Amino acid sequence: MTAIYGKVALIGLGLIASSMAHAMRRSGAAEVISGTSRSAETRAIARELTLADEITDTAAEAVRDADLVVLCVPIGAMEAVARDIAPHLKPGATLTDVGSVKRAVIDAVAPHLPDGVHFIPAHPLAGTEQSGPRSGFAELFDNRWCILVPPENADRKEVARLARFWEALGSNVDEMEADHHDLVLAVTSHAPHLIAYTMVGVADDLRRVTDSEVVKYSAAGFRDFTRIAASDPTMWRDVFLTNKDATLEILGRFTEELFALQRAIRTGDGAHLHDYFTRTRAIRRGIVEAGQDTDIPNFGRGR
Amino acid sequence: MTAIYGKVALIGLGLIASSMAHAMRRSGAAEVISGTSRSAETRAIARELTLADEITDTAAEAVRDADLVVLCVPIGAMEAVARDIAPHLKPGATLTDVGSVKRAVIDAVAPHLPDGVHFIPAHPLAGTEQSGPRSGFAELFDNRWCILVPPENADRKEVARLARFWEALGSNVDEMEADHHDLVLAVTSHAPHLIAYTMVGVADDLRRVTDSEVVKYSAAGFRDFTRIAASDPTMWRDVFLTNKDATLEILGRFTEELFALQRAIRTGDGAHLHDYFTRTRAIRRGIVEAGQDTDIPNFGRGR
Ligand SMILES: NC(=O)c1ccc[n+]([C@@H]2O[C@H](COP(=O)([O-])OP(=O)(O)OC[C@H]3O[C@@H](n4cnc5c(N)ncnc54)[C@H](OP(=O)(O)O)[C@@H]3O)[C@@H](O)[C@H]2O)c1
Ligand SMILES: NC(=O)c1ccc[n+]([C@@H]2O[C@H](COP(=O)([O-])OP(=O)(O)OC[C@H]3O[C@@H](n4cnc5c(N)ncnc54)[C@H](OP(=O)(O)O)[C@@H]3O)[C@@H](O)[C@H]2O)c1
Repeated sequence: MTAIYGKVALIGLGLIASSMAHAMRRSGAAEVISGTSRSAETRAIARELTLADEITDTAAEAVRDADLVVLCVPIGAMEAVARDIAPHLKPGATLTDVGSVKRAVIDAVAPHLPDGVHFIPAHPLAGTEQSGPRSGFAELFDNRWCILVPPENADRKEVARLARFWEALGSNVDEMEADHHDLVLAVTSHAPHLIAYTMVGVADDLRRVTDSEVVKYSAAGFRDFTRIAASDPTMWRDVFLTNKDATLEILGRFTEELFALQRAIRTGDGAHLHDYFTRTRAIRRGIVEAGQDTDIPNFGRGR
Repeated sequence: MTAIYGKVALIGLGLIASSMAHAMRRSGAAEVISGTSRSAETRAIARELTLADEITDTAAEAVRDADLVVLCVPIGAMEAVARDIAPHLKPGATLTDVGSVKRAVIDAVAPHLPDGVHFIPAHPLAGTEQSGPRSGFAELFDNRWCILVPPENADRKEVARLARFWEALGSNVDEMEADHHDLVLAVTSHAPHLIAYTMVGVADDLRRVTDSEVVKYSAAGFRDFTRIAASDPTMWRDVFLTNKDATLEILGRFTEELFALQRAIRTGDGAHLHDYFTRTRAIRRGIVEAGQDTDIPNFGRGR
């Protein structure tokens, strides 16, 4: 394919950025890729893997002449990085990010940008529980959604170009308003992650059940929680601190429902439980039909 | 191998029983397999699939001359089935079950059994979110634990024989006391299932987020919950009604921890969140090392 951007700069070289690098190579979506990361160690690994055409020591160098700059750092680090690179951005360049929360990133980044730079926040809904420059792979975004959150006055030509770019990386692209994005993600991702972290913490705490029992007998449901709860602590701290209101709202609803189910258990109301469990099956069918999961039993792990 | 039991009778022909049938065939653990199920429909499917050497219309016929009888029905149905088959059990036979809760099954079944029948409850920690006679496969129990819960005065020779049988089906075998089993499973399976059901129900309820958004964007964590919450409603109703105390105890601990984390989010206590999320990672490592899960990112689904 003909490249969609001339030079693409990746700021941060963890799971998402390294996967983007592999996917850009696979698709030819960029003519040149530059990249940088905070630590000398990550930069050395990125050079060893030739993740980009040039790995620079500073973000300022990485973004020089770049047509697209992608912020791939934890949400709490976005503001400092934006302030750092702002004076070095090429006029007419597009700045985007991959942060899992959008309102907070917009508030942190937008004030620092010079006129003439197109700021189009984005969030690829793809990830694994692993992190760092070695964890990326080209297929991460295939058939996954990438949500663009352009400001109202965005240049539609540049929004369309960024959409083409993510499509070239394998994604399906959607647009959403920032606050709605943050609410939807609170439901589909942020609250589930906090709940999984909580349950794994409870298991770890329980004196009457040993850790080795929890580990040995995890296959019965718990291990899916542990996978989710193995995600990067810094990334997730930042998600909860910056998507506070939506996450707390969903958790409030969750607690309410949980109390109702606990009451049904306590009073022996089997009909309530059976009805509730029947209703939740339909959502699963929708997800498998939409191609967002496989219906191989247990993901084929048991086979 | 030489068969471990002459005739094995399966009462109920759903996921677990059909998987046992396939695994017995693979291993030669039984000389003859008989089976029966409540509905004519399931029996017809079982005949079509030749799940057993004989599919009988009644449980009484199935257990005739059987050396091992396995109750593979929902926990709430165990008592009626036990009462039904008790007069037909061969003296010296072993009766076992596969129920996910053990104290309740013992209380329901034991009073109905004639002297001279060895009752050795068991629970294979293996399953998928699917059910019915077509969902079974021979590898379901491979490298998964099967927990035996023999009474104190059990015949150790017969306990050892049942252990060899489950090993022949691919399992690792452990022994546990019934109440401890129910507590451990409340942590590793029952509470996680209720939590997953709850979260999926909340998502389904939320007016400001549409069902299609929940489905489309499920890949971000939620879909693992939907898989768990797609499990059979009858089985899980029975689990919660019969493992009430342990489940409610764990859910109480869970709610306590969740409130502490919610407070940390509300007050912006990032250090508390980061510490908590770091601690839960270690458990995951243990599970992968113990061979109870793969560390392929995202179970290889994203690739
Ligand atoms: N993982 C997911 O499932 C997922 C999915 C969608 C979106 N996201 C979003 O993607 C972004 C990156 O996540 P990731 O999974 O790629 O993370 P990751 O693998 O942990 O990589 C994080 C990168 O950010 C750098 N970094 C960390 N703290 C920094 C700081 N204070 N200042 C400057 N750079 C810093 C790291 O640099 P060093 O290695 O040099 O320390 C590393 O290059 C986050 O905003 C996250 O919300 C993640
Ligand atoms: N699924 C798991 O993950 C899992 C794991 C470990 C243990 N277990 C335990 O295994 C047992 C069976 O579960 P499964 O997954 O195999 O279930 P399943 O696939 O839904 O099959 C259930 C079987 O029980 C029969 N049955 C249902 N209600 C009955 C009743 N009231 N009286 C008599 N028979 C009845 C069904 O008969 P018809 O089809 O003829 O109606 C069917 O043969 C349960 O006790 C469960 O706790 C399940």
